Amino acid sequence: AAHGARKMEDYGRFLALLASALLVGFASVVISLVWVFQYRGGLSWDGSSREFNWHPILIVMGFVFIQGIAIIVYRLPWTWKCSKLLMKFIHAGLNTIAMILVIIAIVSAFDFHNASNNPNMYSLHSWIGLIAVICYCLQLFFGVAVFLLPYAPVRLRAALMPIHVYSGLTIFGTVIATCLMGITEKLIFSLSNPPYSQSPPEAILVNCLGLLLVIFGALILWMVSRPHWKRPREENAKTVRHIGATPEGTEAESTMTNSNADKSDPRSNTEAARKQNITFDEAGQRTTM
Amino acid sequence: AAHGARKMEDYGRFLALLASALLVGFASVVISLVWVFQYRGGLSWDGSSREFNWHPILIVMGFVFIQGIAIIVYRLPWTWKCSKLLMKFIHAGLNTIAMILVIIAIVSAFDFHNASNNPNMYSLHSWIGLIAVICYCLQLFFGVAVFLLPYAPVRLRAALMPIHVYSGLTIFGTVIATCLMGITEKLIFSLSNPPYSQSPPEAILVNCLGLLLVIFGALILWMVSRPHWKRPREENAKTVRHIGATPEGTEAESTMTNSNADKSDPRSNTEAARKQNITFDEAGQRTTM
Repeated sequence: AAHGARKMEDYGRFLALLASALLVGFASVVISLVWVFQYRGGLSWDGSSREFNWHPILIVMGFVFIQGIAIIVYRLPWTWKCSKLLMKFIHAGLNTIAMILVIIAIVSAFDFHNASNNPNMYSLHSWIGLIAVICYCLQLFFGVAVFLLPYAPVRLRAALMPIHVYSGLTIFGTVIATCLMGITEKLIFSLSNPPYSQSPPEAILVNCLGLLLVIFGALILWMVSRPHWKRPREENAKTVRHIGATPEGTEAESTMTNSNADKSDPRSNTEAARKQNITFDEAGQRTTM
Repeated sequence: AAHGARKMEDYGRFLALLASALLVGFASVVISLVWVFQYRGGLSWDGSSREFNWHPILIVMGFVFIQGIAIIVYRLPWTWKCSKLLMKFIHAGLNTIAMILVIIAIVSAFDFHNASNNPNMYSLHSWIGLIAVICYCLQLFFGVAVFLLPYAPVRLRAALMPIHVYSGLTIFGTVIATCLMGITEKLIFSLSNPPYSQSPPEAILVNCLGLLLVIFGALILWMVSRPHWKRPREENAKTVRHIGATPEGTEAESTMTNSNADKSDPRSNTEAARKQNITFDEAGQRTTM
Protein backbone atom coordinates (compact mmCIF):
# COMPACT_ATOMS: atom_id res chain seq x y z
CA ALA A 1 0.00 0.00 0.00
CA ALA A 2 2.85 2.36 0.89
CA HIS A 3 4.45 1.40 -2.40
CA GLY A 4 1.29 2.26 -4.33
CA ALA A 5 0.90 5.54 -2.45
CA ARG A 6 4.44 6.50 -3.38
CA LYS A 7 3.69 5.73 -7.03
CA MET A 8 0.56 7.87 -6.96
CA GLU A 9 2.44 10.70 -5.26
CA ASP A 10 5.07 10.57 -7.97
CA TYR A 11 2.35 10.53 -10.64
CA GLY A 12 0.78 13.57 -9.00
CA ARG A 13 4.12 15.35 -9.08
CA PHE A 14 4.47 14.61 -12.78
CA LEU A 15 0.98 15.97 -13.47
CA ALA A 16 1.70 19.12 -11.46
CA LEU A 17 4.86 19.77 -13.49
CA LEU A 18 3.07 19.02 -16.75
CA ALA A 19 0.28 21.44 -15.81
CA SER A 20 2.88 24.10 -14.94
CA ALA A 21 4.69 23.60 -18.24
CA LEU A 22 1.44 23.81 -20.22
CA LEU A 23 0.40 26.91 -18.28
CA VAL A 24 3.75 28.65 -18.78
CA GLY A 25 3.88 27.66 -22.45
CA PHE A 26 0.30 28.80 -23.03
CA ALA A 27 0.96 32.08 -21.20
CA SER A 28 4.02 32.64 -23.43
CA VAL A 29 1.91 32.28 -26.57
CA VAL A 30 -0.76 34.60 -25.16
CA ILE A 31 1.82 37.23 -24.18
CA SER A 32 3.39 37.14 -27.63
CA LEU A 33 -0.10 37.72 -29.09
CA VAL A 34 -0.77 40.59 -26.68
CA TRP A 35 2.62 42.07 -27.58
CA VAL A 36 1.85 41.99 -31.30
CA PHE A 37 -1.80 43.07 -31.18
CA GLN A 38 -1.64 45.54 -28.30
CA TYR A 39 1.69 47.22 -29.05
CA ARG A 40 2.91 46.31 -32.55
CA GLY A 41 -0.13 46.87 -34.79
CA GLY A 42 -1.23 43.26 -35.32
CA LEU A 43 -0.58 40.91 -38.24
CA SER A 44 -0.51 41.14 -42.02
CA TRP A 45 1.57 39.76 -44.92
CA ASP A 46 2.63 42.86 -46.83
CA GLY A 47 6.34 43.36 -46.09
CA SER A 48 5.56 45.82 -43.29
CA SER A 49 6.55 45.41 -39.66
CA ARG A 50 3.14 43.77 -39.27
CA GLU A 51 4.42 40.92 -41.43
CA PHE A 52 7.45 40.67 -39.17
CA ASN A 53 5.04 40.27 -36.25
CA TRP A 54 4.37 36.71 -37.40
CA HIS A 55 7.98 35.96 -36.46
CA PRO A 56 7.77 36.07 -32.64
CA ILE A 57 4.30 34.50 -32.56
CA LEU A 58 5.20 31.52 -34.75
CA ILE A 59 8.56 31.01 -33.05
CA VAL A 60 7.06 31.00 -29.55
CA MET A 61 4.21 28.76 -30.68
CA GLY A 62 6.21 26.35 -32.86
CA PHE A 63 9.86 26.43 -31.91
CA VAL A 64 9.32 26.69 -28.16
CA PHE A 65 5.87 25.43 -27.15
CA ILE A 66 5.25 22.66 -29.71
CA GLN A 67 8.88 21.51 -29.69
CA GLY A 68 8.74 21.38 -25.88
CA ILE A 69 5.60 19.23 -25.92
CA ALA A 70 7.14 16.99 -28.61
CA ILE A 71 10.13 16.43 -26.31
CA ILE A 72 8.05 15.16 -23.39
CA VAL A 73 5.34 13.35 -25.33
CA TYR A 74 6.80 9.91 -24.49
CA ARG A 75 6.60 10.79 -20.79
CA LEU A 76 2.80 11.12 -20.63
CA PRO A 77 1.70 8.06 -18.61
CA TRP A 78 -1.66 7.69 -20.36
CA THR A 79 0.16 7.16 -23.68
CA TRP A 80 2.07 4.15 -22.36
CA LYS A 81 -0.72 1.83 -23.49
CA CYS A 82 -0.40 3.20 -27.04
CA SER A 83 2.07 1.54 -29.39
CA LYS A 84 5.58 2.90 -29.55
CA LEU A 85 5.18 3.46 -33.28
CA LEU A 86 2.13 5.68 -32.76
CA MET A 87 4.07 7.76 -30.24
CA LYS A 88 6.95 8.12 -32.67
CA PHE A 89 4.51 9.41 -35.27
CA ILE A 90 3.17 11.94 -32.78
CA HIS A 91 6.71 12.99 -31.78
CA ALA A 92 7.77 13.38 -35.42
CA GLY A 93 4.45 14.99 -36.36
CA LEU A 94 4.66 17.67 -33.68
CA ASN A 95 8.24 18.43 -34.70
CA THR A 96 7.18 18.65 -38.35
CA ILE A 97 4.41 21.11 -37.49
CA ALA A 98 6.94 23.13 -35.50
CA MET A 99 9.38 23.09 -38.42
CA ILE A 100 6.74 24.42 -40.82
CA LEU A 101 5.81 27.24 -38.43
CA VAL A 102 9.50 28.08 -37.98
CA ILE A 103 10.10 28.28 -41.72
CA ILE A 104 7.13 30.65 -42.14
CA ALA A 105 8.51 32.69 -39.22
CA ILE A 106 11.90 33.00 -40.92
CA VAL A 107 10.34 33.97 -44.24
CA SER A 108 8.37 36.73 -42.50
CA ALA A 109 11.58 38.17 -41.01
CA PHE A 110 13.47 38.05 -44.33
CA ASP A 111 10.48 39.53 -46.22
CA PHE A 112 10.27 42.41 -43.77
CA HIS A 113 14.03 43.09 -43.92
CA ASN A 114 14.05 43.00 -47.71
CA ALA A 115 10.97 45.23 -48.08
CA SER A 116 12.44 47.80 -45.68
CA ASN A 117 16.00 47.51 -47.04
CA ASN A 118 17.36 46.19 -43.77
CA PRO A 119 20.31 43.81 -44.08
CA ASN A 120 19.76 40.15 -43.26
CA MET A 121 21.94 37.80 -41.23
CA TYR A 122 24.15 40.35 -39.51
CA SER A 123 23.14 39.75 -35.89
CA LEU A 124 24.19 37.00 -33.50
CA HIS A 125 20.46 36.22 -33.21
CA SER A 126 20.30 35.46 -36.92
CA TRP A 127 23.54 33.46 -36.95
CA ILE A 128 22.65 31.18 -34.07
CA GLY A 129 18.99 31.07 -35.06
CA LEU A 130 19.81 29.88 -38.58
CA ILE A 131 22.23 27.25 -37.25
CA ALA A 132 19.53 26.05 -34.83
CA VAL A 133 16.95 25.77 -37.63
CA ILE A 134 19.35 23.84 -39.86
CA CYS A 135 20.25 21.48 -37.00
CA TYR A 136 16.54 21.08 -36.20
CA CYS A 137 15.75 20.07 -39.79
CA LEU A 138 18.68 17.63 -39.85
CA GLN A 139 17.59 16.22 -36.49
CA LEU A 140 14.08 15.65 -37.82
CA PHE A 141 15.35 14.09 -41.06
CA PHE A 142 17.75 11.70 -39.35
CA GLY A 143 15.25 11.00 -36.58
CA VAL A 144 12.65 9.85 -39.10
CA ALA A 145 15.21 7.94 -41.19
CA VAL A 146 16.71 6.05 -38.26
CA PHE A 147 13.97 5.66 -35.65
CA LEU A 148 10.64 5.87 -37.49
CA LEU A 149 11.31 4.10 -40.79
CA PRO A 150 11.83 0.35 -40.36
CA TYR A 151 15.17 0.09 -42.18
CA ALA A 152 17.84 1.00 -39.63
CA PRO A 153 19.27 -2.00 -37.76
CA VAL A 154 18.66 -2.12 -34.02
CA ARG A 155 22.36 -1.70 -33.28
CA LEU A 156 22.47 1.58 -35.21
CA ARG A 157 19.36 2.85 -33.40
CA ALA A 158 20.92 2.06 -30.04
CA ALA A 159 24.15 3.82 -31.00
CA LEU A 160 22.42 6.94 -32.30
CA MET A 161 19.73 7.37 -29.63
CA PRO A 162 21.99 9.13 -27.07
CA ILE A 163 23.10 11.52 -29.81
CA HIS A 164 19.47 12.13 -30.84
CA VAL A 165 18.50 12.93 -27.25
CA TYR A 166 21.54 15.13 -26.65
CA SER A 167 21.20 17.12 -29.85
CA GLY A 168 17.44 17.48 -29.39
CA LEU A 169 17.85 19.01 -25.95
CA THR A 170 20.80 21.16 -27.01
CA ILE A 171 18.84 22.52 -29.98
CA PHE A 172 15.86 23.21 -27.71
CA GLY A 173 18.03 25.16 -25.26
CA THR A 174 19.74 27.04 -28.09
CA VAL A 175 16.34 27.99 -29.53
CA ILE A 176 15.27 29.52 -26.23
CA ALA A 177 18.57 31.42 -26.01
CA THR A 178 17.96 32.69 -29.55
CA CYS A 179 14.46 33.88 -28.54
CA LEU A 180 16.00 35.90 -25.72
CA MET A 181 18.38 37.58 -28.18
CA GLY A 182 15.48 38.27 -30.53
CA ILE A 183 13.44 39.87 -27.73
CA THR A 184 16.44 42.00 -26.75
CA GLU A 185 16.97 43.20 -30.33
CA LYS A 186 13.32 43.91 -31.01
CA LEU A 187 12.77 45.88 -27.80
CA ILE A 188 15.88 48.00 -28.40
CA PHE A 189 14.93 48.70 -32.03
CA SER A 190 11.19 49.26 -31.70
CA LEU A 191 10.92 51.21 -28.43
CA SER A 192 11.95 54.82 -28.81
CA ASN A 193 9.68 57.17 -26.93
CA PRO A 194 10.05 56.10 -24.14
CA PRO A 195 13.01 53.83 -24.98
CA TYR A 196 13.66 50.32 -23.60
CA SER A 197 15.84 51.79 -20.85
CA GLN A 198 12.83 53.67 -19.41
CA SER A 199 10.97 50.36 -18.93
CA PRO A 200 7.64 51.21 -20.58
CA PRO A 201 4.83 48.63 -20.09
CA GLU A 202 5.71 46.89 -23.37
CA ALA A 203 9.29 46.36 -22.16
CA ILE A 204 8.09 44.84 -18.88
CA LEU A 205 5.59 42.61 -20.67
CA VAL A 206 8.11 41.27 -23.17
CA ASN A 207 10.84 40.82 -20.54
CA CYS A 208 8.28 38.64 -18.73
CA LEU A 209 7.80 36.69 -21.96
CA GLY A 210 11.55 36.01 -22.01
CA LEU A 211 11.45 34.91 -18.39
CA LEU A 212 8.54 32.54 -19.09
CA LEU A 213 10.43 30.99 -22.01
CA VAL A 214 13.36 30.19 -19.70
CA ILE A 215 11.01 28.71 -17.08
CA PHE A 216 9.26 26.64 -19.76
CA GLY A 217 12.61 25.29 -20.96
CA ALA A 218 13.69 24.48 -17.40
CA LEU A 219 10.44 22.59 -16.70
CA ILE A 220 10.71 20.54 -19.90
CA LEU A 221 14.36 19.75 -19.16
CA TRP A 222 13.49 18.54 -15.64
CA MET A 223 10.58 16.38 -16.80
CA VAL A 224 12.53 14.74 -19.60
CA SER A 225 15.61 13.99 -17.54
CA ARG A 226 13.93 12.15 -14.62
CA PRO A 227 14.61 8.48 -15.41
CA HIS A 228 11.61 7.17 -13.44
CA TRP A 229 9.25 9.17 -15.65
CA LYS A 230 10.39 7.41 -18.80
CA ARG A 231 8.04 5.31 -20.84
CA PRO A 232 8.44 1.70 -19.70
CA ARG A 233 9.93 -0.88 -22.03
CA GLU A 234 7.75 -2.16 -24.84
CA GLU A 235 7.29 -5.72 -23.52
CA ASN A 236 6.03 -4.36 -20.21
CA ALA A 237 3.81 -1.72 -21.73
CA LYS A 238 1.38 -4.46 -22.68
CA THR A 239 0.80 -5.29 -19.02
CA VAL A 240 -0.26 -1.77 -18.09
CA ARG A 241 -3.72 -2.07 -16.65
CA HIS A 242 -4.86 1.44 -15.94
CA ILE A 243 -3.69 4.90 -16.89
CA GLY A 244 -0.80 6.21 -14.87
CA ALA A 245 0.29 2.97 -13.25
CA THR A 246 3.94 2.08 -13.55
CA PRO A 247 3.90 -1.42 -14.99
CA GLU A 248 5.04 -4.12 -12.61
CA GLY A 249 8.36 -5.65 -13.43
CA THR A 250 9.99 -2.59 -14.91
CA GLU A 251 13.54 -2.33 -13.74
CA ALA A 252 14.46 1.28 -13.42
CA GLU A 253 17.70 1.10 -15.32
CA SER A 254 19.18 3.57 -17.72
CA THR A 255 19.68 2.15 -21.17
CA MET A 256 22.09 4.82 -22.25
CA THR A 257 24.32 3.52 -19.51
CA ASN A 258 23.74 -0.11 -20.34
CA SER A 259 24.63 0.44 -23.94
CA ASN A 260 28.11 1.18 -22.70
CA ALA A 261 28.15 -1.68 -20.24
CA ASP A 262 30.49 -3.68 -22.45
CA LYS A 263 33.22 -1.12 -21.87
CA SER A 264 33.88 -2.14 -18.30
CA ASP A 265 31.52 -4.96 -17.55
CA PRO A 266 32.95 -7.44 -15.09
CA ARG A 267 30.13 -9.94 -15.59
CA SER A 268 30.16 -13.02 -17.77
CA ASN A 269 29.80 -12.64 -21.50
CA THR A 270 26.40 -14.31 -21.38
CA GLU A 271 25.11 -11.79 -18.87
CA ALA A 272 26.57 -8.96 -20.90
CA ALA A 273 24.97 -10.34 -24.05
CA ARG A 274 21.59 -10.55 -22.32
CA LYS A 275 21.91 -6.94 -21.22
CA GLN A 276 22.98 -5.94 -24.70
CA ASN A 277 19.81 -7.48 -26.09
CA ILE A 278 17.65 -5.58 -23.66
CA THR A 279 19.46 -2.44 -24.67
CA PHE A 280 18.74 -3.06 -28.31
CA ASP A 281 15.11 -3.99 -27.71
CA GLU A 282 14.66 -0.69 -25.99
CA ALA A 283 16.84 1.28 -28.33
CA GLY A 284 14.00 3.36 -29.64
CA GLN A 285 12.58 4.35 -26.32
CA ARG A 286 14.72 4.13 -23.22
CA THR A 287 17.85 6.05 -23.99
CA THR A 288 17.50 9.48 -22.50
CA MET A 289 20.09 11.49 -20.60
CA ALA B 1 43.02 -7.01 -25.87
CA ALA B 2 40.06 -5.82 -27.94
CA HIS B 3 38.42 -4.75 -24.69
CA GLY B 4 41.48 -2.73 -23.70
CA ALA B 5 41.72 -1.17 -27.15
CA ARG B 6 38.10 -0.06 -26.93
CA LYS B 7 38.81 1.51 -23.53
CA MET B 8 41.80 3.39 -24.90
CA GLU B 9 39.79 4.55 -27.90
CA ASP B 10 37.11 5.88 -25.57
CA TYR B 11 39.77 7.59 -23.45
CA GLY B 12 41.19 9.15 -26.59
CA ARG B 13 37.75 10.44 -27.51
CA PHE B 14 37.37 12.00 -24.08
CA LEU B 15 40.76 13.71 -24.38
CA ALA B 16 39.90 15.02 -27.85
CA LEU B 17 36.67 16.55 -26.53
CA LEU B 18 38.44 17.97 -23.50
CA ALA B 19 41.10 19.53 -25.72
CA SER B 20 38.36 21.00 -27.94
CA ALA B 21 36.52 22.44 -24.95
CA LEU B 22 39.72 23.96 -23.54
CA LEU B 23 40.62 25.38 -26.94
CA VAL B 24 37.16 26.88 -27.51
CA GLY B 25 37.02 28.24 -23.96
CA PHE B 26 40.51 29.70 -24.23
CA ALA B 27 39.69 31.23 -27.63
CA SER B 28 36.58 32.82 -26.10
CA VAL B 29 38.64 34.49 -23.38
CA VAL B 30 41.20 35.69 -25.95
CA ILE B 31 38.49 37.08 -28.25
CA SER B 32 36.86 38.95 -25.37
CA LEU B 33 40.28 40.48 -24.59
CA VAL B 34 40.83 41.42 -28.25
CA TRP B 35 37.35 42.95 -28.33
CA VAL B 36 38.04 45.11 -25.30
CA PHE B 37 41.63 46.13 -26.10
CA GLN B 38 41.38 46.41 -29.88
CA TYR B 39 37.95 48.01 -30.20
CA ARG B 40 36.72 49.27 -26.80
CA GLY B 41 39.66 51.22 -25.39
CA GLY B 42 40.96 48.69 -22.85
CA LEU B 43 40.40 48.47 -19.10
CA SER B 44 40.25 50.88 -16.17
CA TRP B 45 38.20 51.35 -12.98
CA ASP B 46 36.92 54.92 -13.24
CA GLY B 47 33.21 54.67 -14.07
CA SER B 48 33.90 55.04 -17.78
CA SER B 49 33.00 52.52 -20.47
CA ARG B 50 36.51 51.17 -19.88
CA GLU B 51 35.35 50.06 -16.43
CA PHE B 52 32.38 48.35 -18.05
CA ASN B 53 34.87 46.45 -20.22
CA TRP B 54 35.72 44.29 -17.21
CA HIS B 55 32.17 42.93 -17.45
CA PRO B 56 32.45 40.79 -20.62
CA ILE B 57 36.01 39.67 -19.81
CA LEU B 58 35.25 38.51 -16.27
CA ILE B 59 31.95 36.90 -17.28
CA VAL B 60 33.51 34.92 -20.14
CA MET B 61 36.47 33.95 -17.96
CA GLY B 62 34.58 33.18 -14.74
CA PHE B 63 30.94 32.47 -15.48
CA VAL B 64 31.54 30.50 -18.67
CA PHE B 65 35.07 29.09 -18.81
CA ILE B 66 35.81 28.40 -15.13
CA GLN B 67 32.25 27.26 -14.39
CA GLY B 68 32.47 24.92 -17.39
CA ILE B 69 35.72 23.39 -16.15
CA ALA B 70 34.27 23.07 -12.64
CA ILE B 71 31.36 21.09 -14.10
CA ILE B 72 33.56 18.47 -15.76
CA VAL B 73 36.34 18.32 -13.17
CA TYR B 74 35.09 14.97 -11.79
CA ARG B 75 35.31 13.51 -15.31
CA LEU B 76 39.09 13.91 -15.70
CA PRO B 77 40.40 10.31 -15.55
CA TRP B 78 43.74 11.25 -13.99
CA THR B 79 41.90 12.67 -10.96
CA TRP B 80 40.19 9.35 -10.20
CA LYS B 81 43.09 8.33 -7.99
CA CYS B 82 42.62 11.50 -5.91
CA SER B 83 40.21 11.39 -2.99
CA LYS B 84 36.62 12.37 -3.60
CA LEU B 85 36.93 15.04 -0.92
CA LEU B 86 39.85 16.70 -2.70
CA MET B 87 37.84 16.78 -5.94
CA LYS B 88 34.89 18.33 -4.13
CA PHE B 89 37.21 21.05 -2.83
CA ILE B 90 38.45 21.70 -6.37
CA HIS B 91 34.87 21.75 -7.73
CA ALA B 92 33.72 24.14 -5.00
CA GLY B 93 36.92 26.19 -5.24
CA LEU B 94 36.61 26.75 -8.99
CA ASN B 95 32.98 27.76 -8.55
CA THR B 96 33.95 30.15 -5.75
CA ILE B 97 36.59 31.79 -7.94
CA ALA B 98 33.99 32.09 -10.70
CA MET B 99 31.50 33.63 -8.26
CA ILE B 100 34.01 36.28 -7.16
CA LEU B 101 34.82 37.20 -10.77
CA VAL B 102 31.10 37.40 -11.56
CA ILE B 103 30.42 39.72 -8.64
CA ILE B 104 33.23 42.05 -9.76
CA ALA B 105 31.79 41.90 -13.28
CA ILE B 106 28.36 42.94 -12.03
CA VAL B 107 29.79 45.78 -9.95
CA SER B 108 31.63 47.10 -13.02
CA ALA B 109 28.37 47.19 -15.00
CA PHE B 110 26.43 48.94 -12.22
CA ASP B 111 29.29 51.42 -11.63
CA PHE B 112 29.38 52.31 -15.31
CA HIS B 113 25.59 52.73 -15.52
CA ASN B 114 25.50 54.89 -12.40
CA ALA B 115 28.43 57.08 -13.48
CA SER B 116 26.86 57.66 -16.90
CA ASN B 117 23.30 58.02 -15.56
CA ASN B 118 22.08 54.95 -17.40
CA PRO B 119 19.26 53.04 -15.70
CA ASN B 120 20.05 49.62 -14.20
CA MET B 121 18.05 46.41 -14.43
CA TYR B 122 15.72 47.32 -17.27
CA SER B 123 16.84 44.77 -19.85
CA LEU B 124 16.00 41.09 -20.16
CA HIS B 125 19.78 40.51 -20.00
CA SER B 126 19.90 42.09 -16.56
CA TRP B 127 16.78 40.31 -15.29
CA ILE B 128 17.86 36.82 -16.29
CA GLY B 129 21.51 37.53 -15.49
CA LEU B 130 20.69 38.60 -11.94
CA ILE B 131 18.46 35.56 -11.42
CA ALA B 132 21.26 33.32 -12.72
CA VAL B 133 23.80 34.89 -10.34
CA ILE B 134 21.47 34.51 -7.35
CA CYS B 135 20.77 30.87 -8.26
CA TYR B 136 24.51 30.29 -8.74
CA CYS B 137 25.29 31.64 -5.25
CA LEU B 138 22.50 29.54 -3.70
CA GLN B 139 23.73 26.48 -5.61
CA LEU B 140 27.25 27.02 -4.27
CA PHE B 141 26.01 27.59 -0.72
CA PHE B 142 23.78 24.52 -0.64
CA GLY B 143 26.36 22.47 -2.51
CA VAL B 144 28.98 23.18 0.16
CA ALA B 145 26.50 22.72 3.01
CA VAL B 146 25.16 19.39 1.78
CA PHE B 147 27.97 17.70 -0.15
CA LEU B 148 31.24 19.15 1.16
CA LEU B 149 30.62 19.62 4.88
CA PRO B 150 30.33 16.32 6.75
CA TYR B 151 26.97 16.98 8.44
CA ALA B 152 24.29 16.05 5.89
CA PRO B 153 23.08 12.45 6.16
CA VAL B 154 23.77 10.18 3.21
CA ARG B 155 20.06 9.85 2.44
CA LEU B 156 19.73 13.63 2.06
CA ARG B 157 22.79 13.78 -0.21
CA ALA B 158 21.35 11.07 -2.43
CA ALA B 159 18.02 12.87 -2.63
CA LEU B 160 19.53 16.26 -3.44
CA MET B 161 22.24 15.18 -5.91
CA PRO B 162 19.94 14.96 -8.97
CA ILE B 163 18.64 18.45 -8.15
CA HIS B 164 22.20 19.76 -7.73
CA VAL B 165 23.19 18.34 -11.13
CA TYR B 166 20.05 19.58 -12.86
CA SER B 167 20.21 23.10 -11.44
CA GLY B 168 23.94 23.34 -12.09
CA LEU B 169 23.52 22.51 -15.77
CA THR B 170 20.43 24.70 -16.12
CA ILE B 171 22.25 27.65 -14.56
CA PHE B 172 25.23 27.05 -16.86
CA GLY B 173 22.99 27.05 -19.94
CA THR B 174 21.13 30.14 -18.74
CA VAL B 175 24.43 31.94 -18.19
CA ILE B 176 25.47 31.30 -21.78
CA ALA B 177 22.07 32.51 -23.02
CA THR B 178 22.55 35.65 -20.93
CA CYS B 179 25.98 36.22 -22.50
CA LEU B 180 24.38 36.10 -25.94
CA MET B 181 21.87 38.76 -24.90
CA GLY B 182 24.68 40.88 -23.47
CA ILE B 183 26.67 40.63 -26.70
CA THR B 184 23.57 41.60 -28.70
CA GLU B 185 22.90 44.64 -26.50
CA LYS B 186 26.49 45.82 -26.43
CA LEU B 187 26.99 45.55 -30.20
CA ILE B 188 23.76 47.43 -30.91
CA PHE B 189 24.59 50.19 -28.41
CA SER B 190 28.29 50.66 -29.08
CA LEU B 191 28.51 50.33 -32.87
CA SER B 192 27.26 53.39 -34.68
CA ASN B 193 29.45 54.32 -37.62
CA PRO B 194 29.18 51.80 -39.22
CA PRO B 195 26.33 50.29 -37.16
CA TYR B 196 25.92 46.61 -36.19
CA SER B 197 23.71 46.04 -39.24
CA GLN B 198 26.63 46.88 -41.56
CA SER B 199 28.69 44.04 -40.04
CA PRO B 200 31.93 45.89 -39.28
CA PRO B 201 34.89 43.69 -38.21
CA GLU B 202 34.06 44.18 -34.52
CA ALA B 203 30.54 42.81 -35.11
CA ILE B 204 31.88 39.73 -36.89
CA LEU B 205 34.48 39.14 -34.17
CA VAL B 206 31.99 39.38 -31.32
CA ASN B 207 29.35 37.31 -33.13
CA CYS B 208 32.06 34.64 -33.35
CA LEU B 209 32.59 34.99 -29.61
CA GLY B 210 28.89 34.25 -29.09
CA LEU B 211 29.13 31.25 -31.37
CA LEU B 212 32.15 29.91 -29.47
CA LEU B 213 30.30 30.28 -26.15
CA VAL B 214 27.47 28.10 -27.49
CA ILE B 215 29.95 25.50 -28.78
CA PHE B 216 31.76 25.51 -25.43
CA GLY B 217 28.48 24.93 -23.60
CA ALA B 218 27.50 22.13 -25.98
CA LEU B 219 30.88 20.38 -25.49
CA ILE B 220 30.67 20.60 -21.69
CA LEU B 221 27.09 19.31 -21.76
CA TRP B 222 28.09 16.32 -23.90
CA MET B 223 31.09 15.43 -21.74
CA VAL B 224 29.19 15.64 -18.48
CA SER B 225 26.19 13.65 -19.64
CA ARG B 226 28.03 10.54 -20.95
CA PRO B 227 27.55 8.02 -18.13
CA HIS B 228 30.66 5.97 -19.01
CA TRP B 229 32.85 9.03 -18.44
CA LYS B 230 31.75 9.40 -14.85
CA ARG B 231 34.18 9.05 -12.00
CA PRO B 232 34.03 5.44 -10.82
CA ARG B 233 32.64 4.61 -7.40
CA GLU B 234 34.84 5.36 -4.42
CA GLU B 235 35.56 1.75 -3.44
CA ASN B 236 36.83 1.02 -6.95
CA ALA B 237 38.86 4.17 -7.26
CA LYS B 238 41.40 2.67 -4.90
CA THR B 239 42.16 -0.09 -7.40
CA VAL B 240 43.05 2.30 -10.21
CA ARG B 241 46.59 1.48 -11.21
CA HIS B 242 47.58 4.00 -13.82
CA ILE B 243 46.21 7.26 -15.10
CA GLY B 244 43.38 6.95 -17.56
CA ALA B 245 42.52 3.31 -16.97
CA THR B 246 38.90 2.54 -16.22
CA PRO B 247 39.08 0.59 -12.99
CA GLU B 248 38.21 -3.07 -13.28
CA GLY B 249 34.95 -4.07 -11.72
CA THR B 250 33.09 -0.84 -12.34
CA GLU B 251 29.56 -1.56 -13.38
CA ALA B 252 28.40 1.11 -15.74
CA GLU B 253 25.11 1.81 -14.04
CA SER B 254 23.37 5.09 -13.49
CA THR B 255 22.85 5.88 -9.84
CA MET B 256 20.24 8.51 -10.45
CA THR B 257 18.18 5.73 -11.90
CA ASN B 258 18.97 3.28 -9.14
CA SER B 259 17.95 5.75 -6.50
CA ASN B 260 14.46 5.37 -7.87
CA ALA B 261 14.68 1.63 -8.15
CA ASP B 262 12.44 1.17 -5.11
CA LYS B 263 9.53 2.66 -7.05
CA SER B 264 9.09 -0.32 -9.30
CA ASP B 265 11.65 -2.85 -8.26
CA PRO B 266 10.48 -6.40 -8.75
CA ARG B 267 13.45 -7.89 -6.92
CA SER B 268 13.56 -9.10 -3.34
CA ASN B 269 13.81 -6.56 -0.56
CA THR B 270 17.32 -7.73 0.25
CA GLU B 271 18.48 -7.09 -3.28
CA ALA B 272 16.77 -3.72 -3.29
CA ALA B 273 18.38 -2.84 0.04
CA ARG B 274 21.81 -3.78 -1.29
CA LYS B 275 21.28 -1.53 -4.31
CA GLN B 276 20.01 1.23 -2.07
CA ASN B 277 23.23 1.05 -0.08
CA ILE B 278 25.34 1.34 -3.20
CA THR B 279 23.26 4.32 -4.19
CA PHE B 280 23.90 6.02 -0.89
CA ASP B 281 27.61 5.19 -0.89
CA GLU B 282 27.88 6.86 -4.22
CA ALA B 283 25.50 9.67 -3.44
CA GLY B 284 28.16 12.32 -3.63
CA GLN B 285 29.59 11.27 -6.93
CA ARG B 286 27.53 9.13 -9.26
CA THR B 287 24.27 10.92 -9.72
CA THR B 288 24.45 12.83 -12.96
CA MET B 289 21.80 13.20 -15.62
